[in-house]
Amino acid sequence: MDITHIEHIGIAVANMDEAIGYYENVLGLKCYKIEEVTDQKVKTAFFQVGQTKIELLESTSPEGPIAKFIEKKGPGIHHIAFATEGLQTALDDAESKGISLIDKQPRKGAEGLNIAFLHPKSTLGVLTELCEHPKN
Amino acid sequence: MDITHIEHIGIAVANMDEAIGYYENVLGLKCYKIEEVTDQKVKTAFFQVGQTKIELLESTSPEGPIAKFIEKKGPGIHHIAFATEGLQTALDDAESKGISLIDKQPRKGAEGLNIAFLHPKSTLGVLTELCEHPKN
Repeated sequence: MDITHIEHIGIAVANMDEAIGYYENVLGLKCYKIEEVTDQKVKTAFFQVGQTKIELLESTSPEGPIAKFIEKKGPGIHHIAFATEGLQTALDDAESKGISLIDKQPRKGAEGLNIAFLHPKSTLGVLTELCEHPKN
Repeated sequence: MDITHIEHIGIAVANMDEAIGYYENVLGLKCYKIEEVTDQKVKTAFFQVGQTKIELLESTSPEGPIAKFIEKKGPGIHHIAFATEGLQTALDDAESKGISLIDKQPRKGAEGLNIAFLHPKSTLGVLTELCEHPKN
C-alpha cells in the first residue's frame, strides 16, 4: 500500500459551533469549510494543520453513525484517514491480507475524495479510512 | 497558539508485536524506532507518515495509563499531538481561556520532545498533547 501522508483525522463532536470555537480560539486554527455529507448524516468542518486536516463531524440525525459513536464512546477522535495512491489496489491488497473492508470499492466522501473504510475489528480498534484524489 | 503541524497520533495497542505487524505488512509503513518511556509505563513504536508520526503505545504495567485506557475503551486512537512553537506560552494562553491542563509546565516525552497534555474534559473529549523540539 502506498501511503503518502495522513489526509485527515476525523473527530466526533456533539456541538459544531462550540467545537469550531475551541479549535479556532484556543488552538488558533482556522475553519476553511463547512460541508454536509447527506448520506453519512453528518455536517463536517475542516481545518488545515500542516499536511493534514482536522475534520470535525457533527451528526445531523440521532440515527447517524456519529450520533451512535458519541452515544457509545462519547465525543472524541473517530477515525484516521491515510492518503494513498491506487485506492482500489490498496483495498484488494488489504483484503487479501485478511482485513475486513467496510467499502469494497471506493465511494465519494467529503471534499470530492474517493474514500473507503477498513473495519476497526481488523485494524486493532482504529477506524481507518483510505482516500485518494479522483485525478489519481 | 502557533501550531505548525500534527507531530504524532498516539494509538493504544494491546500487543505491540501484532500491531507492528499490521502497520508494516498491511499499511506498508516502516517502524523506525522502539522506545520505552519508563515514567509513563509504556513501550512506544514510531512510524513516519509524511509530516506526522504514528506512535503505538503498549502498556508495560497493568496500572499504567494505557492499560487503563484499553480497559475502559478498548484499543484504538488515544491522543493527538500538535507541534507548537513557544510551548510554555501556549500552555499559559490555553489556561487563560479556561482549558484544564494536565501539565502546567512542559516535561520530557518520547523522542526528546518537550511535551504537555491538555485535559480531555476541556478539549471536547480529545486527549490533546502539545509538543516542541527542545531547541526552540
